[in-house]
Amino acid sequence: MENERWILPDGIEEVLPPEAGVIERKRRELLDLYHSWGYEFVIPPFVDFLDSLLTGTGSDLDLQTFKLTDQLSGRMMGVRADITPQAARMDAHHFSSEEPNRLCYLGTVLHTRSDGFAGTRSPLQIGAELYGHAGVESDIEILRLMMKTLEMTGVQNVYLDLGHVGIFKGLARQAGLNRHQEAALFDVLQRKALPEINELLHTFELDESHAAMLSKLAELNGDGALAEAAEALQAADEPVREALAYLTKMAEQIAVWLPNVPVHFDLAELRGYHFHTGVVFAAFVPERGKEIARGGRYDHIGKVFGRARPATGFSTDLKTLMLMAGQERDILDEPAIFAPWSGDLVLREKITFLRAAGRRVICALPGQQGGAREMGCSEVLRLDGDSWELHPV
Amino acid sequence: MENERWILPDGIEEVLPPEAGVIERKRRELLDLYHSWGYEFVIPPFVDFLDSLLTGTGSDLDLQTFKLTDQLSGRMMGVRADITPQAARMDAHHFSSEEPNRLCYLGTVLHTRSDGFAGTRSPLQIGAELYGHAGVESDIEILRLMMKTLEMTGVQNVYLDLGHVGIFKGLARQAGLNRHQEAALFDVLQRKALPEINELLHTFELDESHAAMLSKLAELNGDGALAEAAEALQAADEPVREALAYLTKMAEQIAVWLPNVPVHFDLAELRGYHFHTGVVFAAFVPERGKEIARGGRYDHIGKVFGRARPATGFSTDLKTLMLMAGQERDILDEPAIFAPWSGDLVLREKITFLRAAGRRVICALPGQQGGAREMGCSEVLRLDGDSWELHPV
Repeated sequence: MENERWILPDGIEEVLPPEAGVIERKRRELLDLYHSWGYEFVIPPFVDFLDSLLTGTGSDLDLQTFKLTDQLSGRMMGVRADITPQAARMDAHHFSSEEPNRLCYLGTVLHTRSDGFAGTRSPLQIGAELYGHAGVESDIEILRLMMKTLEMTGVQNVYLDLGHVGIFKGLARQAGLNRHQEAALFDVLQRKALPEINELLHTFELDESHAAMLSKLAELNGDGALAEAAEALQAADEPVREALAYLTKMAEQIAVWLPNVPVHFDLAELRGYHFHTGVVFAAFVPERGKEIARGGRYDHIGKVFGRARPATGFSTDLKTLMLMAGQERDILDEPAIFAPWSGDLVLREKITFLRAAGRRVICALPGQQGGAREMGCSEVLRLDGDSWELHPV
Repeated sequence: MENERWILPDGIEEVLPPEAGVIERKRRELLDLYHSWGYEFVIPPFVDFLDSLLTGTGSDLDLQTFKLTDQLSGRMMGVRADITPQAARMDAHHFSSEEPNRLCYLGTVLHTRSDGFAGTRSPLQIGAELYGHAGVESDIEILRLMMKTLEMTGVQNVYLDLGHVGIFKGLARQAGLNRHQEAALFDVLQRKALPEINELLHTFELDESHAAMLSKLAELNGDGALAEAAEALQAADEPVREALAYLTKMAEQIAVWLPNVPVHFDLAELRGYHFHTGVVFAAFVPERGKEIARGGRYDHIGKVFGRARPATGFSTDLKTLMLMAGQERDILDEPAIFAPWSGDLVLREKITFLRAAGRRVICALPGQQGGAREMGCSEVLRLDGDSWELHPV
């Protein structure tokens, strides 16, 4: 099939039958799930002015965003590379109540380069966001919904990775790092390159205890990470200790709500650092290096749009999940009915009735070569006396 | 709300609850309808290489298409402005059988400028296409499905406009018009500017009978158009007479299948002229100058993609239809249930059960101000002895 695919850009997919039908079915199940949890469906725009799309999101998203010139306004537009900031803007703009607000969405996003999700540049992003509540309970609700999403798409052996961007942010601030130093340290921390980290920290000429805490961060992962952190970050100030306490509370609640899910702590994990403000989490499966779903807290991103609110949410790529779960092969072989082409009123009523009852009826077209079998039908409509009846092929 | 909307580009919409939920419901009803008629759902890509998007489509679509540079390949890509050519390519690429092939789709398209559909530049295009059959019967099936789509979205008082691009094409060829002359005449015909048409024809120095037929074309519309045409186009050659015969057959079949739909013939109507190859149709409602759905025959567009097949189809904008039908106001006020936040296992099971049964259960978040009423719930879960029961608010 290679020669048939040359025409699509790398990482841009078309979905054929019957896989497209399977995705549609899963789409409905998931949106119905979110609805049953109180999440309202929204449809954010596919393109928007660039400054709206990128406000508060950091430079990663900027690089991932395709740019367009709007001929009407002369302004730069972008194709959304993430729906989460759009949903946050909707909450800030349109929901004036102080009550919690739950939104969900599903739609294509585009990336200028593949982010590793199965090499795609056009994920079918699905997610849910909860605004207006600042505690562990809303993070847990979102985390449960993310896990339920993975379960419903048939992904198995999922484990969670948990971190909190407040720990690095707090230690960097306490150590007095300037913006450039913080960015440089962030880079090497992401790669967990311990010698480089220490070398870099040395050049900063920090207070010894601050340098020690930042250096230790890269090692604070695994089962005992929270206990180790309590020890290693004793000299940290209040915000860092609060972040650690938050993570501890998350761990307790995960044990209650998701007792069978393995949790891995990684205090140097800074996924979505420029966007997130608190706890961050990601779901992994053993056979795959990249996360398959992610989320976390991003309080106050709506501020620039008029309203600062606590916020937490998750998102994932439905196409990737379906591929992973092998759901594409799980095709319902639904029996279809082949009907002759005819203006006969009785036949027409019969066909209308069958279709309304959920059956699939395919009408013959005069001159077509194949019959019921070639059209994938297992039954035919045939005139018995004066009524049209179903017969097996 | 004006100050809240400034941020979206003209003609680019976001859809909020509960309207987004209404659109989602209608989406499902329509895709289920198409499925019951034997149409398979496909998901064509949102962007593609420009040459693939525009092959065989004419310059109108080129002007409507947003262009992007693909950083990976260095080639130009476009955001699709129409899904029909994408579906045709899918048929040409992926379906090797000679049998009829039925495809349907739903997705956002983008236009650089509004085409008048309620001023939108991001229609939610929905449509169906039938490949591999060259007769009136497939056009009628598509026409019926288009009318059923309008009926199901609640649009009323629809009338049809019918034409056939083969008439103008045939007359132009017979008269020996060159490409430039044909394009110039096409332009004035679109505006039905009779004096200009005659003036232009005069400059072409055509054979008198050819000029007379082309001049007459602009007047061939209304109830008696087909009969008039038989008279006025007597000197036309075979392809034109075949096109007229095709239209007559269409009229007969429409009388059988859609007896209550008013049909208006317009032989100079050349909607989609560069793309279509035969009969063209459009649906109108009295209060609106612009068509609300359109379709027609476009044989052999798949040729450049490897396979020439007869093809017919229709498409429309779901958002426009919903707006017109006023469905946005038809919101189901579904009773939701408010539940306390608690890890209590019995409560958790009760909530899981209710959600699986299709109920909507919203959990309280510790510290939130409002209660059931503020969250739009009409029932609450409350502990009665040792079981959790539903109570009205």
